Amino acid sequence: LSAVKSIERSDLESQDVAAIVRAVGARARLAARELAQAPSSHKEAALRAMAAAIRSGKARILQANARDLDEAGSADRTPAFVDRLRLDPARVEGMSAGLEAVAILPDPVGQVIAEWDRPNGLHIERVRVPLGVIGIVYEARPNVTSDAGGLCLKAGNAAILRGGSESFHSSCAIVECMHEGLAAAGLPTAAIQLVPTRDRTAVGEMLAMTDSIDVIVPRGGKSLIERVQRESRIPVLAHLEGNCHVYVHSKATVAMAREVIVNAKMRRTGVCGAAESVLVDRAVAKSHLPPVIEALAAAGCEIRGDAEVGTLDPRVTAASEADWSTEYLDAILSVKIVGSLDEAIGHINRYGSHHTDAILTEDPVAAERFLAEVDSAIVLHNASTQFADGGEFGMGAEIGIATGRLHARGPVGAEQLTTFKYRIRGTGQTRP
Amino acid sequence: LSAVKSIERSDLESQDVAAIVRAVGARARLAARELAQAPSSHKEAALRAMAAAIRSGKARILQANARDLDEAGSADRTPAFVDRLRLDPARVEGMSAGLEAVAILPDPVGQVIAEWDRPNGLHIERVRVPLGVIGIVYEARPNVTSDAGGLCLKAGNAAILRGGSESFHSSCAIVECMHEGLAAAGLPTAAIQLVPTRDRTAVGEMLAMTDSIDVIVPRGGKSLIERVQRESRIPVLAHLEGNCHVYVHSKATVAMAREVIVNAKMRRTGVCGAAESVLVDRAVAKSHLPPVIEALAAAGCEIRGDAEVGTLDPRVTAASEADWSTEYLDAILSVKIVGSLDEAIGHINRYGSHHTDAILTEDPVAAERFLAEVDSAIVLHNASTQFADGGEFGMGAEIGIATGRLHARGPVGAEQLTTFKYRIRGTGQTRP
Repeated sequence: LSAVKSIERSDLESQDVAAIVRAVGARARLAARELAQAPSSHKEAALRAMAAAIRSGKARILQANARDLDEAGSADRTPAFVDRLRLDPARVEGMSAGLEAVAILPDPVGQVIAEWDRPNGLHIERVRVPLGVIGIVYEARPNVTSDAGGLCLKAGNAAILRGGSESFHSSCAIVECMHEGLAAAGLPTAAIQLVPTRDRTAVGEMLAMTDSIDVIVPRGGKSLIERVQRESRIPVLAHLEGNCHVYVHSKATVAMAREVIVNAKMRRTGVCGAAESVLVDRAVAKSHLPPVIEALAAAGCEIRGDAEVGTLDPRVTAASEADWSTEYLDAILSVKIVGSLDEAIGHINRYGSHHTDAILTEDPVAAERFLAEVDSAIVLHNASTQFADGGEFGMGAEIGIATGRLHARGPVGAEQLTTFKYRIRGTGQTRP
Repeated sequence: LSAVKSIERSDLESQDVAAIVRAVGARARLAARELAQAPSSHKEAALRAMAAAIRSGKARILQANARDLDEAGSADRTPAFVDRLRLDPARVEGMSAGLEAVAILPDPVGQVIAEWDRPNGLHIERVRVPLGVIGIVYEARPNVTSDAGGLCLKAGNAAILRGGSESFHSSCAIVECMHEGLAAAGLPTAAIQLVPTRDRTAVGEMLAMTDSIDVIVPRGGKSLIERVQRESRIPVLAHLEGNCHVYVHSKATVAMAREVIVNAKMRRTGVCGAAESVLVDRAVAKSHLPPVIEALAAAGCEIRGDAEVGTLDPRVTAASEADWSTEYLDAILSVKIVGSLDEAIGHINRYGSHHTDAILTEDPVAAERFLAEVDSAIVLHNASTQFADGGEFGMGAEIGIATGRLHARGPVGAEQLTTFKYRIRGTGQTRP
């Protein structure tokens, strides 16, 4: 601890970015060892105290946010950017409520996932343990600070948060409240640290700290995630795009096609589980597509279709090859006619992003083939792709949806922020 | 398929290494889609047929191996290198027996790991699926060709094998036999491919093929693994060193200390689970260490100790700071006196490699603290570190012991070579 304090004094107050980030890493590693042994009740108490401190610190947080908005306003910002950055009393309350929801989730740490006995008498247990230190690299959404910090804590991990420099004052104020909560519960404040500099080289330093960070979770746009994946020497749990499909099979009902597709596309267009492409079996194109297009158009959606789709409705514009691979995150949908289940599966595996894809059909055999052969993290039969969400899965909270194949795939909740160890108990066994 | 054949014809016979490796990757991706749907019985039949083909092709394999040995002999080789490269009838039979052992393991693919219902009626299943395409980069051990290829196939993955160029002829002959087995079972021969060139730039090409390889598994010495970790843009399941410890707690018995330590160090010194360092509680150093040192010395082990250990036996030489971090993989052991359980845990977490560590004690409270606080993939109470092995865990076969924290930790068997997907069944649910 005295070592940590001397690091703090000499380095955190210096202007040497590398030294600052290394000091943060060293403190996180020490905190992680303590957190790994922390009882569930302490972590739960800390999460509740953090929620309370954010609630009672609302004025301070909003003041800091006003300063961020003020500084951001002087530059050339999009309304979407300012909306992401802006906090209001409801959003601050949302952060507190989120922490309280995480507090009551089951603690994954210490769960025995499997156990068995060997013929030689050894008893082997596979038991969940925290990942260690998690680095979160995100953009200008201040609520990620409490969401990500809280979920990491639940799973016994130390978090190093590196938010966008535009939300620096807001994030500082939020982390101060979280530190009050940690201290109140007797946990180290280094459990959740914000990189204490706006210097943009700090991210590069973090991504090279293989000794003190165990996993990097980027949250933000495509360019941020691609940069992190390219530069990181630390394993990355990344969520890339969600180019999600709904396939209307020949045995789908018109009513379900209309309702599920409008929901999958238009409920929220900016989420990764929003449908971006619809495939319709040629056998039902004439019967099913016109009502679907009608409902989408009424909801304000632009349709880009192949030539066959174009003949069905004058509002359809021509899709280009690039449309099949595009995640619009907007009220735009690409639509294609396919000749068979095989063609649909082949198209999705080729152009999709292995995120979330759905089939609509009353034919259970076709549904099973789709669920088996579409190579995506989430495959659905007769349900909207917008269910791609940790909360909707019952996980309580998520840090994102992983599109990689290793470790975590799909929603990343508290359980996915753990690893495991093997605990073996013997009576003096030696190996022959 | 015709596309694959034209790739084969034009590129595999060309001298363009990048084109050759890309063609191998494209074939593997197609094969992986087919393997992912292959019934267990087909994979089992293929593994048995591969074993039979290797058995009946023994003469051809040994001839190819003689050619490798002949070419290797002209260069400056260590006896250990030649021993790793050399095959004999018993080793070829071992490869067949290994494939037959993998054949009868349970198939992890398709297992439902978890399933639950949501209040809205959605039924969610988490189901095991293959990782996809696995790239294995190894050195001059020809048996890795069949061991790794067979285990990948069991888990429904396509394998791209890149063995050491010195074992090229042996590996080609082994892969030919495996292809006979695959074809006999009606599975694509591209399920297991050897990179068909000895050109050393092929590894670099493989490590950049993020589109066609899902995970890289390096098998070999430290420099190979470090190179792969440094260069790969594909996730790596790596096994780094095993700097394994045995801690003799104050409540350990002399007899168990002697037996377990001699086994942990000397049963086989070249395996990653071999103990490299022993920590002894000061309270029992005088009673327990002399008989341990005596037994180790009798077995031919060199002891490097701290100053206190040095006073106990004249055969002990002085350990340097570097010894505490060294994986000898030889008949050498470092020994240190510690003052407490805390000091032992702190030393192991600082100098160890998070692989496998053991405590010897009759005190269950001390044992539980050690098992909880030592941050290693495998922690043992009263048992030898040499149990760090997939076979000893009951996994049947392993491709290595992973020391990373993500996805697989500890022995990597067929189950660890899978990922999962979420399969969701609904009745037209939309998200509110």
